[in-house]
Amino acid sequence: MRDNDVVPLPTSRRLDSTTLDTVTYDDHGLVPAVVQETTSRDVLMLAWMDAEALRRTLETHRATYWSRSRQSHWVKGETSGNTQHVRDVLLDCDGDTVLLLVDQTGPACHTGALTCFTVSP
Amino acid sequence: MRDNDVVPLPTSRRLDSTTLDTVTYDDHGLVPAVVQETTSRDVLMLAWMDAEALRRTLETHRATYWSRSRQSHWVKGETSGNTQHVRDVLLDCDGDTVLLLVDQTGPACHTGALTCFTVSP
Repeated sequence: MRDNDVVPLPTSRRLDSTTLDTVTYDDHGLVPAVVQETTSRDVLMLAWMDAEALRRTLETHRATYWSRSRQSHWVKGETSGNTQHVRDVLLDCDGDTVLLLVDQTGPACHTGALTCFTVSP
Repeated sequence: MRDNDVVPLPTSRRLDSTTLDTVTYDDHGLVPAVVQETTSRDVLMLAWMDAEALRRTLETHRATYWSRSRQSHWVKGETSGNTQHVRDVLLDCDGDTVLLLVDQTGPACHTGALTCFTVSP
């Protein structure tokens, strides 16, 4: 939970450049990002973001994540073309999870499935 | 990614007692659980599960999580009455995130909001 004396809770859960410092990161400096499609409302995937990925995502509206295996940033769809246009980023009540509302182009999963939780398109 | 020579990828992403050992846990023995409501399709919250929480959830259909702050299991709604009946548990393509599809009773968030990503009911 937040310390309300230090960082006031936002009145909205919508993150922007002025509320970016209300995010709590884990020991690795990361926050889990749940990604949901705005039209289908499918949960597409879960990825990880550091503060820089979050800043870039808010600035460019292109979903940008931190790869824990490659230890580098990646922009969703940069290679595959299956981009995510980010409409909104919401922070949860504890400040340690974000929800990205995106317009997904093409399948979200690297397997070709529509989401990372389904097998076939 | 999974080692296909050791653990074959499931043909469905639906977890059950026979595929429980295909889950990959983090350094703390935990896996993030994204929780989605089956009717509203709202993303309600993100919580954490260890193998035992996952086993209990599959067995009882009552969402059971691991509290990182209290270092103990908790059953959603056990105190508040705002229970989650778990219809399905899906594993993602990398095997390191689960998606719970639940019937939520009452608000999902301890603040009284419908979801942990919204402010008011």
